[in-house]
Amino acid sequence: MQISDFIRDIKDFPKKGIVFKDITPLLNNPDAFRFCIEQLSSKLEGISFNKIVVIESRGFIFGSALGLLMKKAIIPVRKKGKLPAEVISISYDLEYGTDTLEIHKDSLDKTDKVIIVDDLLATGGTVCAVEKLVKLSGAEVVADVFVVDLTFLKGMSKLSCKKVIKLVDF
Amino acid sequence: MQISDFIRDIKDFPKKGIVFKDITPLLNNPDAFRFCIEQLSSKLEGISFNKIVVIESRGFIFGSALGLLMKKAIIPVRKKGKLPAEVISISYDLEYGTDTLEIHKDSLDKTDKVIIVDDLLATGGTVCAVEKLVKLSGAEVVADVFVVDLTFLKGMSKLSCKKVIKLVDF
Repeated sequence: MQISDFIRDIKDFPKKGIVFKDITPLLNNPDAFRFCIEQLSSKLEGISFNKIVVIESRGFIFGSALGLLMKKAIIPVRKKGKLPAEVISISYDLEYGTDTLEIHKDSLDKTDKVIIVDDLLATGGTVCAVEKLVKLSGAEVVADVFVVDLTFLKGMSKLSCKKVIKLVDF
Repeated sequence: MQISDFIRDIKDFPKKGIVFKDITPLLNNPDAFRFCIEQLSSKLEGISFNKIVVIESRGFIFGSALGLLMKKAIIPVRKKGKLPAEVISISYDLEYGTDTLEIHKDSLDKTDKVIIVDDLLATGGTVCAVEKLVKLSGAEVVADVFVVDLTFLKGMSKLSCKKVIKLVDF
């Protein structure tokens, strides 16, 4: 089975000239989705970690399923104002303006080894901000995990974690 | 194991006077999260369905894990402008203003039997809108599924699907 067979191109989304990689056909096929999560799990063999930091929103889908399969804690990183308890925040630059991400202050500490999961690595700005959030909490990032890497955007060069796991390169 | 032991009260969120039910401790405990997903699966025994409609964002977490466990397709409902292909949209009233939800037009058809999954039933406005979205696609809703029901908000009375599965009543 090829995971790339379940990722389709949508032209001109979110704006003219961009070809968007749509992972919803992968979600719509239970065998392909399970294969994807099992592949991620198998590539994580030998890496010791106890928590999975999942990035809102599509990272929630893959990270939670991986958490269930691997019996690891699931720690959500959300957009500003969504998490109810005390948070650590980080702001980062987007193409236009800035965005803010938050994590619960009591969800991680210096004893935790975490992997960060998102569906897709693009420019790397979001994951780089999440790596910083995890470090602010005192925990250690032991791997960044993606289903897709848009290699032409060179997101890998922005990541500070040396271990990157990914299933499909475009 | 009691799932309610892993749901905590956060006072004055999102605004003064509201007590927010925070499900993140449930995510942070792998045994409790697995127990929760297995409980949902066991309550769905005997109900025939092929797809799980998951509501952004916290519904993604529970619905995707349930999809992995039960080998069902995962169909995301997202906020306006997030899904890249052709969508069906629905707008619905909030306390102040309106919100819009979307589903991919090609993700469901009249042969599909679906369950709708969200973390928490409050006033029922969002799930009611998602039920309508599914019906607009031609598919049938066979169950609405929640981890938590805030029963004092009487959300159940808004739902058109007769089968409602939930694990914890507050």
